[in-house]
Amino acid sequence: MKISARNILKGKIVAIKKGATTAHVQIDIGGVVVTASITNEAVDDLQLKVGEPAAAVIKSSDVMVAVAD
Amino acid sequence: MKISARNILKGKIVAIKKGATTAHVQIDIGGVVVTASITNEAVDDLQLKVGEPAAAVIKSSDVMVAVAD
Amino acid sequence: MKISARNILKGKIVAIKKGATTAHVQIDIGGVVVTASITNEAVDDLQLKVGEPAAAVIKSSDVMVAVAD
Amino acid sequence: MKISARNILKGKIVAIKKGATTAHVQIDIGGVVVTASITNEAVDDLQLKVGEPAAAVIKSSDVMVAVAD
Amino acid sequence: MKISARNILKGKIVAIKKGATTAHVQIDIGGVVVTASITNEAVDDLQLKVGEPAAAVIKSSDVMVAVAD
Amino acid sequence: MKISARNILKGKIVAIKKGATTAHVQIDIGGVVVTASITNEAVDDLQLKVGEPAAAVIKSSDVMVAVAD
Repeated sequence: MKISARNILKGKIVAIKKGATTAHVQIDIGGVVVTASITNEAVDDLQLKVGEPAAAVIKSSDVMVAVAD
Repeated sequence: MKISARNILKGKIVAIKKGATTAHVQIDIGGVVVTASITNEAVDDLQLKVGEPAAAVIKSSDVMVAVAD
Repeated sequence: MKISARNILKGKIVAIKKGATTAHVQIDIGGVVVTASITNEAVDDLQLKVGEPAAAVIKSSDVMVAVAD
Repeated sequence: MKISARNILKGKIVAIKKGATTAHVQIDIGGVVVTASITNEAVDDLQLKVGEPAAAVIKSSDVMVAVAD
Repeated sequence: MKISARNILKGKIVAIKKGATTAHVQIDIGGVVVTASITNEAVDDLQLKVGEPAAAVIKSSDVMVAVAD
Repeated sequence: MKISARNILKGKIVAIKKGATTAHVQIDIGGVVVTASITNEAVDDLQLKVGEPAAAVIKSSDVMVAVAD
C-alpha cells in the first residue's frame, strides 16, 4: 500500500505501553523518538514488537511548526 | 510555552510553499524531512524563513504506525 | 505497508479537485462517497486518477459518532 | 445541527468497547465497519447502544488516500 | 444531529476567507476568536455568512494543553 | 516556543481525569469549558494541576463549523 500521508519516518520500535483501549508506541527514527497513540487492536493486528522495524506515519495537516520565542 | 504534544522534532526549515490559504513547510530534522501543512497567517506570524531553526510539533494521537507487509 | 489506522475503506476514485496546495479526492466506497483532503504532491506521487481503485484511510481517533436529536 | 465535516457515513452501531477514558465504537455503514475512538462521556451523553442507528463523522482533512503498490 | 465531539463552542461568524479549495472561518465565541479551516464546499453547503450564529466543533483528541515555561 | 496553531485559548484547569494511558483535562476559558484528551505522560511532564493557568491549543484544520438546522 502507498499512502498520501507525506511523513513516513522509518525507525525501530523502542517501547510499547498498552492501556485499556489505547496503546503508546515509541519509534526511534535515528536518535529522535516519536510517540504514536494507536488502538490496542492495531498493536496486535500488526504484531508490533520492541526491536522490530516500523515507521511513524503522519499526515502533513497534523504537523504544526514551532519556533523559539 | 510548554505543550502536551509528545513529539517536538527539532530541525531547520528547508522549504516554504504558500497556497491561497494553506502553506507547506518542510523541516529537515536530521536527514529526514517532515512536511507540515499550516495556514499562510501562521507562516507570516512566526516569520518563518528557509534556513531558520524550527520544530515539527505533532500530537501522539495523530501518529500512526506502519510495518512492511 | 500495513498501517495501524483501523479504517481502510476500499473503493474507486470518482473526483479529484486540485487547489493551490491542497486537493480534494472523492472515493466511492460502495454507494457512499468519502472526501479526502490531501496535498497536491500526494496526488501526483500516488498518480491518482479518476476511475482507479483507492482506499480512504482514517485513524479511529479522527472519527466522531453522531446520532439524530 | 449541520456540520462542515464532509463525511457523514450513516449506519448502525455493532460494537461498543469502553476503556478507562476512551471508548471504541464500531458502526456498520453497509457491509463496511468503521471504528471510532471517542470519550466514555460521549458514549453516555449520546446514550449509544448496539443496534441503534448512528453516523461516523469525519473531517476531510483527516482522510488519507492509499493505493496498492 | 448530536455529536460525540466534546467541544461545541457557540459564537458568531466574524470572518470568512476562501482559498482555492480551503476556507478559513473565524468565530467569536465571546471575546475569543476561534479559527476553523474547512472546505469551500462546506462554506457553501452550510450557507455560512459573517454575522450569523455558528459553533466551533472540536474533538477532544485534537486539543492540546500548554502552560507557560 | 511560538506555535503555528491558530487557536490558543487561555484559561484555568478545572478538572483532570487520568485513564490507563489517556487523560482528559478540562480548561475553563471564560465561562466555556474545553476538554482536551492528552497522554498521562503529558499531564505529569507539564505538572498540570487543577486551578492552574493553562491554554487549550488547537490547529485550525482540526476545527469544524456547525450551524443550527
